[in-house]
Amino acid sequence: MKKMQALQWDGKLLQVNSVPIPAPTAGEVLVRVTRAGICNTDLEIIRGYYPFTGTLGHEFTGIVEHAEDAALVGKRVVSDINNSCQQCAMCQAGQAHHCLNRSALGIKDKDGAFAEFLTTPVRNLVLVPDEVPDEMAVFAEPLAAALEIQEQVDFSSIKDVAVIGDGKLGLLIAMSLIQAELNVTLIGHHPERATLSGSSQLNYLPSPPETLFPVVIEATGSPSGFEDALALTAPRGTLVLKSTYGTALNFNPAPVVVNEISILGSRCGPMHKAVAAMASAAINPASLIEGSYALKDGVDAVNRADQKGVLKILLCM
Amino acid sequence: MKKMQALQWDGKLLQVNSVPIPAPTAGEVLVRVTRAGICNTDLEIIRGYYPFTGTLGHEFTGIVEHAEDAALVGKRVVSDINNSCQQCAMCQAGQAHHCLNRSALGIKDKDGAFAEFLTTPVRNLVLVPDEVPDEMAVFAEPLAAALEIQEQVDFSSIKDVAVIGDGKLGLLIAMSLIQAELNVTLIGHHPERATLSGSSQLNYLPSPPETLFPVVIEATGSPSGFEDALALTAPRGTLVLKSTYGTALNFNPAPVVVNEISILGSRCGPMHKAVAAMASAAINPASLIEGSYALKDGVDAVNRADQKGVLKILLCM
Repeated sequence: MKKMQALQWDGKLLQVNSVPIPAPTAGEVLVRVTRAGICNTDLEIIRGYYPFTGTLGHEFTGIVEHAEDAALVGKRVVSDINNSCQQCAMCQAGQAHHCLNRSALGIKDKDGAFAEFLTTPVRNLVLVPDEVPDEMAVFAEPLAAALEIQEQVDFSSIKDVAVIGDGKLGLLIAMSLIQAELNVTLIGHHPERATLSGSSQLNYLPSPPETLFPVVIEATGSPSGFEDALALTAPRGTLVLKSTYGTALNFNPAPVVVNEISILGSRCGPMHKAVAAMASAAINPASLIEGSYALKDGVDAVNRADQKGVLKILLCM
Repeated sequence: MKKMQALQWDGKLLQVNSVPIPAPTAGEVLVRVTRAGICNTDLEIIRGYYPFTGTLGHEFTGIVEHAEDAALVGKRVVSDINNSCQQCAMCQAGQAHHCLNRSALGIKDKDGAFAEFLTTPVRNLVLVPDEVPDEMAVFAEPLAAALEIQEQVDFSSIKDVAVIGDGKLGLLIAMSLIQAELNVTLIGHHPERATLSGSSQLNYLPSPPETLFPVVIEATGSPSGFEDALALTAPRGTLVLKSTYGTALNFNPAPVVVNEISILGSRCGPMHKAVAAMASAAINPASLIEGSYALKDGVDAVNRADQKGVLKILLCM
């Protein structure tokens, strides 16, 4: 049995192991991973907040190594991370991302992308066009998550949006909202990052302003970020929770009731729209890359990603 | 100066005082109150959670005693409780209930309905037709609050709704949702109250079922009710917070994010729709009356309303 390298978490220890190359089941393809990104969710798993063990990683791009459809072999791809059953009530209702029996790449019951190879359902693949290089394609998953906000919130009569947190997720969200022609105010501690958005239109503030916003996006994952976001949300407005939270939140529900605020959770989004946005050069997240590591140095890469203020760290296979 | 009786809260003491009859300002009418209802918000104010002092009460019906438009005098009315400025950004956006400078009858900067007379803006009045007797009309405000849920949530593709809490608010919400032809599951501890809804279609359960619901309405105002409601909300579903909360809530945001749940605060609703629903006999909340007291016995009335498991207590002037 052929072996490969994989960065694995066993619940206590993170290390690069030599493990068998996974065998695709019916309907799956084998993908050779070329780039993978480290996400806060990976860090939360290692901190023990998510009970996953196995090969970590869910942000990646790669090349199809084996497929039932030979035409797919050799294609550059990204993949939706949710492996749905296609049969439960949520799948039947067209909500496969919320499949009641789902596994999720590197997060739940399925080995992930911090490895030389992974398997994923062929229906989850999105082909990557030539104009999207690997260092952009690897952002398809987090960019799709950012775009999910636009799937959930009706922006047709909204102009102004605030984003709390200028980490890699906050910046990606800001980029996606600027591209949707919204006026974005980003509240964060790194004003030098304003240029990373690729737009001169980003309003960067070091602390929440007096103004209220009809839509506020919380992208810090911290209780203080949530508190700031709630205080910044206008009556009848929407506060979007976009981060993976490792801790409980404590809040006074009275203002939520009195101001009829909606607190909206938001997770995975449309991969094909993310790829299309990058293909049209509307959004280029590659500016968020802060470092790249070989897979064999995966533990160092994760430690680097876990440092305060670090943007996107990639693994290159 | 003519005097009247009023049940007042001074921040420490609740008592019936003899006070001047209020003088209507420009655009206001003077209303002689005939019935008033005691709400949990009144009790929360007395518990110290809301910083109001003055004449309590915001659920009422009465007769116009004095108005600039003489045709109004003698009319039976109810009134929206939000006194808006008509000039701020929220008012200009058609959201007068969220006026940034508003006062609210018996809740904020405006003496309320536990008195022989009150003043209210003429634009807030809704005429009460003959087919709605006082003991129904007095429910216009809380019924409007129940109907507000249907203003906020799109029920067009939803059949099943759960309501947590079978207090007076939970029952009124259940009634309003049954009338909207939804399948309502009410979770509460008083199965004998099922008949109060006036419908045989109410599914009454003593504890949350295994099933998930696309819409769950929290009407207990307690942290455990919130926890139950969150656990009962389906992925992509809506949890409506309908109660006045006196305490903070602690919750794990991870399931809200993962399941993309919306937590939606809900407050005051359309008074005219509440009156219309009662006029058409679609909803009759009078079955929720548990006791009536004279205004002079207002302190006893409030103490009774504060007892566990007591439904609506009225003051009759």
